Amino acid sequence: MNAVERWGTFELAVNGASEGNPYTERTLTATFTGAHECVRVDGFYDGDGVYRVRFMPGYEGEYTYALDGSYGGGRQQGSFTVLPPSGDNHGPVRVAGQYHFAYADGTPYYSIGTTCYVWDLQTDARIAETLRSLKDSAFNKIRFCVFPKHYDYNLGEPRSYPYQGTPMDSSVLTKENFMQYTFRAEGNHFDYTRFNPAHFRHVEWCIEQLRALGIEADIILMHPYDRWGFCTMTREQDDLYWRYAVARFAAYRNVWWSLANEYDLFPTKTVADWERCAGILLEKDPYGHLRSIHNCHPFYDYTRPWVTHCSIQRQDLYKTAELVNEWRERFRKPVVLDEIAYEGDIQHGWGNISGQEMNRRFWEAACRGGYPGHGETCMNPENILWWSHGGRLRGESWKRFGLLHEVMTQTPGLGLMPWEGCGWDEVCGVPESEFMLPVKSYYLFYYSFMRPSFREYRFDDDTPFRVRVIDTWEMTVEDRGVFRGRFRVDLPGKPYMAVQIRREPE
Amino acid sequence: MNAVERWGTFELAVNGASEGNPYTERTLTATFTGAHECVRVDGFYDGDGVYRVRFMPGYEGEYTYALDGSYGGGRQQGSFTVLPPSGDNHGPVRVAGQYHFAYADGTPYYSIGTTCYVWDLQTDARIAETLRSLKDSAFNKIRFCVFPKHYDYNLGEPRSYPYQGTPMDSSVLTKENFMQYTFRAEGNHFDYTRFNPAHFRHVEWCIEQLRALGIEADIILMHPYDRWGFCTMTREQDDLYWRYAVARFAAYRNVWWSLANEYDLFPTKTVADWERCAGILLEKDPYGHLRSIHNCHPFYDYTRPWVTHCSIQRQDLYKTAELVNEWRERFRKPVVLDEIAYEGDIQHGWGNISGQEMNRRFWEAACRGGYPGHGETCMNPENILWWSHGGRLRGESWKRFGLLHEVMTQTPGLGLMPWEGCGWDEVCGVPESEFMLPVKSYYLFYYSFMRPSFREYRFDDDTPFRVRVIDTWEMTVEDRGVFRGRFRVDLPGKPYMAVQIRREPE
Repeated sequence: MNAVERWGTFELAVNGASEGNPYTERTLTATFTGAHECVRVDGFYDGDGVYRVRFMPGYEGEYTYALDGSYGGGRQQGSFTVLPPSGDNHGPVRVAGQYHFAYADGTPYYSIGTTCYVWDLQTDARIAETLRSLKDSAFNKIRFCVFPKHYDYNLGEPRSYPYQGTPMDSSVLTKENFMQYTFRAEGNHFDYTRFNPAHFRHVEWCIEQLRALGIEADIILMHPYDRWGFCTMTREQDDLYWRYAVARFAAYRNVWWSLANEYDLFPTKTVADWERCAGILLEKDPYGHLRSIHNCHPFYDYTRPWVTHCSIQRQDLYKTAELVNEWRERFRKPVVLDEIAYEGDIQHGWGNISGQEMNRRFWEAACRGGYPGHGETCMNPENILWWSHGGRLRGESWKRFGLLHEVMTQTPGLGLMPWEGCGWDEVCGVPESEFMLPVKSYYLFYYSFMRPSFREYRFDDDTPFRVRVIDTWEMTVEDRGVFRGRFRVDLPGKPYMAVQIRREPE
Repeated sequence: MNAVERWGTFELAVNGASEGNPYTERTLTATFTGAHECVRVDGFYDGDGVYRVRFMPGYEGEYTYALDGSYGGGRQQGSFTVLPPSGDNHGPVRVAGQYHFAYADGTPYYSIGTTCYVWDLQTDARIAETLRSLKDSAFNKIRFCVFPKHYDYNLGEPRSYPYQGTPMDSSVLTKENFMQYTFRAEGNHFDYTRFNPAHFRHVEWCIEQLRALGIEADIILMHPYDRWGFCTMTREQDDLYWRYAVARFAAYRNVWWSLANEYDLFPTKTVADWERCAGILLEKDPYGHLRSIHNCHPFYDYTRPWVTHCSIQRQDLYKTAELVNEWRERFRKPVVLDEIAYEGDIQHGWGNISGQEMNRRFWEAACRGGYPGHGETCMNPENILWWSHGGRLRGESWKRFGLLHEVMTQTPGLGLMPWEGCGWDEVCGVPESEFMLPVKSYYLFYYSFMRPSFREYRFDDDTPFRVRVIDTWEMTVEDRGVFRGRFRVDLPGKPYMAVQIRREPE
């Protein structure tokens, strides 16, 4: 039976021409037509005379397709059936309620991200270990790269290259000299017009594994930590890559597009380049996957229409998640904190905060209506750091995010917003959807590094509220019963406490 | 022998009129003349027909004095001898090197302050306990009030009142209603033109005890936490008080003038009032004791000429001592952080940070060339909080300040300035006096909450530097030997580490 589930990936493989350079000289386009949509997508050359085209149906029912182009197989057509989604398939994640996210079927999505830049380019054994680590965690988004990475603690060869050719001799690299090779294409012999399909097939396998785990694949399409010339390709070479990547990846429902990691560090690219690349995504991705771009120093202008959400690296050493309120106001979009430093103990200041501090930044962000992201750089004899390689989680913060996610799912509506009515010395998230209500149905207070022995609350004189005291570090939740009017909640005088206050049904 | 030591307090008591209101109707002035100075001061009425005048000689040698005024004892004169200073008497503290302090004899003064608002107005037993606590600590400055305090955890009666009369009935006060009585003079029966000399004599005794311990008395002349009408007196009543306070206190070398605590919370005072009061200090204090004023929310304009140093309460919940660099640039005066929150666990966000965080803020401030201040609000069954009452130190941070002070005294010159040449992810103080030198003789690095496992340094290729690794929390100091050129220092991957790097004699 020719069938696929809604928001699944329907794939067609057809034979075609292999002579010349099929990547640049041949085209394959496909039109998919169902009762509620008609979608036109590009196919791609997958090597060995095989062309493929992929489609993610947005509706159930009968679909037809028609192939065309110069790929050498002529016009073809056929039909297939789209079945209801199965299991945990809720469709792709979209922006919802302006500052939040939801799956296509309306289920709210509360992002708990992590970063493993090139976990996908490690050995099979390490990839398997990373997937096990992710399965045991609460992470539901991971940022990673298509291109290999060249940086401190990460000077080895990737398992494969995205282009046909041979890399520079990496035996010359040391911890001391590696920066000299950054941005340098000399010594490499890649054809930037001929992809290595096996590399992309492997990345797709990784995306599929993540999809099976319910984890969003926040794909970093370009990054500047490069010694192979990938970050300094020509405009034409870039365009070819973007189209190829979209043709290959867009039909996976868990894909997010991150145009670049640290866009501002590329030696030859300008904002105009990123805008052009965004234009390719807008033109070629018919599903409107989430789109953003990540900074090192200055933020990208997240108010640009193509940007669906902020993908922020904190700019200040001390104030990080605390600035979510400001960023929400400034950009008026979901605030995703994709880097708020890494838990670990390496020499760099971006990679040596404690688990307590990471968890604190997570709660600060969440209670302000933002979405925090994690990473780890814990020293170990093998120099295998989660931040780059994946592998095993060694820190302390990740174990606590399940509790945060559980609490996030208890939010009425799509997400929290910072409540302006709270005290100067507390953070409080209230439902975004209750913006206009003087008394909310839900308050999530967080006390950060402060250690109050008690706090007093009053929302009105009548409404009954159930109070739960959450130790976000020790992961205990205590039900304190129902209160009305002005009431006092005793706390243990320890840091990292949250107080969840929910209207009780009367 | 009629003698006093240099920077000691020479006092004359004379009999005079007691009828009417001697505080407003009588004058006593004195002129003290030595080989190097001629100083004119006001005396004051001390009750029971006794007038006193005090003088702090700035030089050694023979002095004469002459009394005059309408006090009723006529013109009197005499002579006395000023001897060399004894013991730890280094004279009053002055601003030195623009951003720092030194005693009058040139000895650098590195301020390690604390706050106990009304320790002086407690029982004899508690005062004795406070003095013992101070003696066992590294504190060399304490902020406290002349007027009693009315605030949360502090609703009791003081041991005495500064004015003759009777206070309101405090038995009506509760934790819930006390704010309603703040700023209210009703129910009190004080004569704001007749001081209670016993109250002032007791404050002076406290100043003397501090002086004996080598502790600066940062006297808060006015504050808004009041239910007795003292903070809402008329302009004339205020002026009378300021002149009386200066006449009584100025001859103690350890006095600093803090015009007000939280000047911006007074219901009836304007900046013009504070400027007028500052004018009285300028006119009446011949010794030029240090002068500042403390904020709740907006800073006072510390660039005003009469302000000798900033007396800052942090404005941000998260960034506190980290802003010393900015404040130095903005005000161009010594930056004293008189409130960076209190170590403790009370309900208020200003009073519940951990000892680690307090100590972290101290090192952040010190390594940026600022001077941090401490306070404690640790809950206890008796509700005796160091912040208000003094008594026993219950926190953890104060035990660590001796080490910080010891390290501060190792600074070449008068004090540190923030080094702009350091990394973005570290703080480094270098000697202010070596501002122009490309390679300094001294670097004090601090890693705050970060946990580097190692750091690398290079100042030049030749200079030998001795490296000491300081765990500011565990209070260990490890000598790592002498290094040149580029070198690596291994660290334990823990927070709160400092690295002291000093040029080694060749």
